[in-house]
Amino acid sequence: MILTVTLNAALDVTYFVDRLVPHSSHRVDDIHERAGGKGINVSRVLNALGRPTTVTGLAGGTTGTALRAELHEAGLRDELVPIAGDSRRTVTIVSREDGDATVFNQTGPVVQPADWTDFGTRYARLVRFADVVVLSGSLPPGLPPDAYAQLIAVAAAAGAATVLDTSGPALLAALSAGPDVVKPNAAELAAVTGCQDIAAAAAELRALGARAVVASRGPDGLHALTAQGSWRATPPEQLSGNPTGAGDACVAALAAGLAAGAPWPDTLREAVALSAAAVPCPVAGDFDAETYHRLRTTVPVEEIHDAHPDR
Amino acid sequence: MILTVTLNAALDVTYFVDRLVPHSSHRVDDIHERAGGKGINVSRVLNALGRPTTVTGLAGGTTGTALRAELHEAGLRDELVPIAGDSRRTVTIVSREDGDATVFNQTGPVVQPADWTDFGTRYARLVRFADVVVLSGSLPPGLPPDAYAQLIAVAAAAGAATVLDTSGPALLAALSAGPDVVKPNAAELAAVTGCQDIAAAAAELRALGARAVVASRGPDGLHALTAQGSWRATPPEQLSGNPTGAGDACVAALAAGLAAGAPWPDTLREAVALSAAAVPCPVAGDFDAETYHRLRTTVPVEEIHDAHPDR
Repeated sequence: MILTVTLNAALDVTYFVDRLVPHSSHRVDDIHERAGGKGINVSRVLNALGRPTTVTGLAGGTTGTALRAELHEAGLRDELVPIAGDSRRTVTIVSREDGDATVFNQTGPVVQPADWTDFGTRYARLVRFADVVVLSGSLPPGLPPDAYAQLIAVAAAAGAATVLDTSGPALLAALSAGPDVVKPNAAELAAVTGCQDIAAAAAELRALGARAVVASRGPDGLHALTAQGSWRATPPEQLSGNPTGAGDACVAALAAGLAAGAPWPDTLREAVALSAAAVPCPVAGDFDAETYHRLRTTVPVEEIHDAHPDR
Repeated sequence: MILTVTLNAALDVTYFVDRLVPHSSHRVDDIHERAGGKGINVSRVLNALGRPTTVTGLAGGTTGTALRAELHEAGLRDELVPIAGDSRRTVTIVSREDGDATVFNQTGPVVQPADWTDFGTRYARLVRFADVVVLSGSLPPGLPPDAYAQLIAVAAAAGAATVLDTSGPALLAALSAGPDVVKPNAAELAAVTGCQDIAAAAAELRALGARAVVASRGPDGLHALTAQGSWRATPPEQLSGNPTGAGDACVAALAAGLAAGAPWPDTLREAVALSAAAVPCPVAGDFDAETYHRLRTTVPVEEIHDAHPDR
């Protein structure tokens, strides 16, 4: 089972408008609401692939109730832990004219110490059933900066592998706990290391404790630096649409590969195919099955021979 | 007491962002939520002026619960009638850079026949205590097109005067019931009559049954056509800010003038001053007290002698 952790779960609300015109009024007659947050999106992709997955994390208030109701409707196993505050909403305005998305992300409620204790208890129980734990997204206010390091240590002690997808101080503070895979995008990697060279920056994260680094480079695919080697995987065709959710689809593939013990080139091929298949879909957590099946056998994966740190 | 009716009450959510950039992601750390809908805004203005007012209308679901909690906090008397559906939200993005607002209005839930029957019972009771009834805003889906005509007839039978602020078919269908004042803006007046000339269009609404027409012309003030005469009232200075809520402040002044039996020129002076004082405030239902007090004695009101229909 792949356990996903979403500490800042959200109700994702999408407003469809004909055209977004700043400083004007828009009538919205088409609204979609669903549970969101990066870990939940990852579980949604895994569920669609038929991989057993469980959602945990923190959710509360009337917004928490609404997002959990939607998780149940979607058939996802919900082990979210209730918190005192009201979960955040994200509002995405999708313009029908060009399919483009404008996103407003609320910060999220302040997590109380008692909430974090409750979560620790539930997480320690769930992690015993997990092959892989996915830790995704920003830390809500109120959590200790090393929250992900604590969760990685508990997973490691229980024998579960970990995939971490976060950025900034939350990423840096987690590295010493030795996550099995970290997946920053190129901008996050440069921001956290201060280094624009993707290979050098990935090597730095490994030096700080990450066992493997898979950096996403948007339409240019993935750059992976692992104990087994380094690879570059590139989508064989460019897809137009909305890149929101491509990162979560990538993480789903990395977690599935880790759970199956697949060789890195196979996992990277899946990850690029699944990310690319998320682009034509306007909502994170969805992917286009036909695109995925077309690409998963054709993504070129190239080994980088001058960048093996460990052999 | 002035009774305001909001059949499509909302939770108005305002997101403050540094700058609205279409097709990008925005972090929102400053969120304000309050009860909204045009009638509720009118009551808020009346309450700030110290005029007794009661809020009624329709609200339901978790959004209805949230908006009613905020009404109580604001000290407004709440006689909203619960409905089966979940009330709508409106989302307004205010850019800190220029104070400009971009608005997303949800349509609102479908009102069930039983909800409308419940409302009729409550309204018939409340209207007996009202000097003036304010009917504001669009009709939610599910209501009969002549909903406002029905409510105006009940008010008239109970001896209460009515102020109607709506547009399109809801306005047209209400005229035959003889509302005491209708307050379209210039664009709504032109749309409903097909006539660009404001005086001729106002005369047409009177011919269809409205006892008085007060048309708002944005920064150019008000044009009033009544049984007692016709007037033009113009703000003596232009204010910059957000015109959202200026119409509701205007309606509050019209209702207060009607309740007090004030002469039309005094009421129009108040209405222009209060509308203008709403412009510097980013949120509907608020007005700047200092601006209001400065303008209420200085708004020029000019009688139009060639446009008296009845004398």
